[in-house]
Amino acid sequence: MTFQTYFPFWEKLEPGQQSRLAEAVMFRTVPKGTLLHSGSKDCTGLLLVKSGQLRAYILSDEGREITLYRLFERDICLFSASCLMRSIQFEVMIQAEKDTELWVVPADVYQGILEESAPAANYTNELMASRFSEVMWLMEQVMWKSLDKRVAAFLLEESAIEGTSQLKITHEAIANHLGSHREVITRMLRYFQDEGMVKLSRGMVSLLDTDKLEKLRD
Amino acid sequence: MTFQTYFPFWEKLEPGQQSRLAEAVMFRTVPKGTLLHSGSKDCTGLLLVKSGQLRAYILSDEGREITLYRLFERDICLFSASCLMRSIQFEVMIQAEKDTELWVVPADVYQGILEESAPAANYTNELMASRFSEVMWLMEQVMWKSLDKRVAAFLLEESAIEGTSQLKITHEAIANHLGSHREVITRMLRYFQDEGMVKLSRGMVSLLDTDKLEKLRD
Repeated sequence: MTFQTYFPFWEKLEPGQQSRLAEAVMFRTVPKGTLLHSGSKDCTGLLLVKSGQLRAYILSDEGREITLYRLFERDICLFSASCLMRSIQFEVMIQAEKDTELWVVPADVYQGILEESAPAANYTNELMASRFSEVMWLMEQVMWKSLDKRVAAFLLEESAIEGTSQLKITHEAIANHLGSHREVITRMLRYFQDEGMVKLSRGMVSLLDTDKLEKLRD
Repeated sequence: MTFQTYFPFWEKLEPGQQSRLAEAVMFRTVPKGTLLHSGSKDCTGLLLVKSGQLRAYILSDEGREITLYRLFERDICLFSASCLMRSIQFEVMIQAEKDTELWVVPADVYQGILEESAPAANYTNELMASRFSEVMWLMEQVMWKSLDKRVAAFLLEESAIEGTSQLKITHEAIANHLGSHREVITRMLRYFQDEGMVKLSRGMVSLLDTDKLEKLRD
């Protein structure tokens, strides 16, 4: 897998554009927990995820968090290059949720390519539209779905990502994904436990009855 | 004012591209209340607002609404052409909130221009980023702000748009802007009335103490 394969428009670039990108791209390995990008003043560049997992989230003034979306192998993170677009007026944080290998395309180099290449600009449009769709999905969840359904959905998603029903995750971390408070999540998880859907232990949530969780979610 | 002035990239188009746009664009006048666009299967095209006011909103399965943003004179509505982008997976409704004059650029013609012109594609990117920013702002409101603050903010915004402190608006309509229920809004407005901030009468909310409303909002 090379960084070129992330760009479906690669073959439509001129040789000079291809070599500008190829010379500028940097490979990085970052440990779990690294904050890769912090708000719109930070101009990290485009991140191409080779392996691992990133989380895009927003922060409230009081330090509450909510996860906007996750990025996995072969995903491109556009908002780490949000300085490219004047019209982006919001602050996104990007953090490595696992040890992650990635390529970084410096923002100014990518911008130069965008200005010259309609295929590159249209692809970037698609990328933004796809993140926009994820955020709209989240907005609908937050607006129309009760927290019990959102917690059930989160536990099931997490279990699918990790490939296990034994989730190593704190109540605080769940609250930070869902934009809620730790106390509220703890209360909800205890209710789930009383209903036989999960079992709680220190730093751990084990899913016992995924059918019941799925029924609650849907 | 001509439709060309909506496109800052106009001068960068080739004469053939300019004439394709000019020949395809249609002028329309729609009365208040017209539903101009309904979800992603509907491919209305780009809407350029000459006068009037549009509202973009989403609908829940139960028929609840929430306003995403409004479009005024000189604004361009991109999501009425959402069929342009495969990656847009959410359903936006666009309604005329006032009698509105607009130009419609058919989606397929605009798409042809985007594919050829990097300046047009980059401008479209900026448009999407700016709508994205509005939706993110809304998300932050919904996540971190209590409903009393959101109702106060909505009344003040509405008063600024209409240029009057006598708002002709029903509690139902306010609920539909904010994604809430009529009963909840009525209760909140009665509390505002008890606090001397507004006066309620049939189909009408009059702002009495904007200072107090602003203090509540901020």
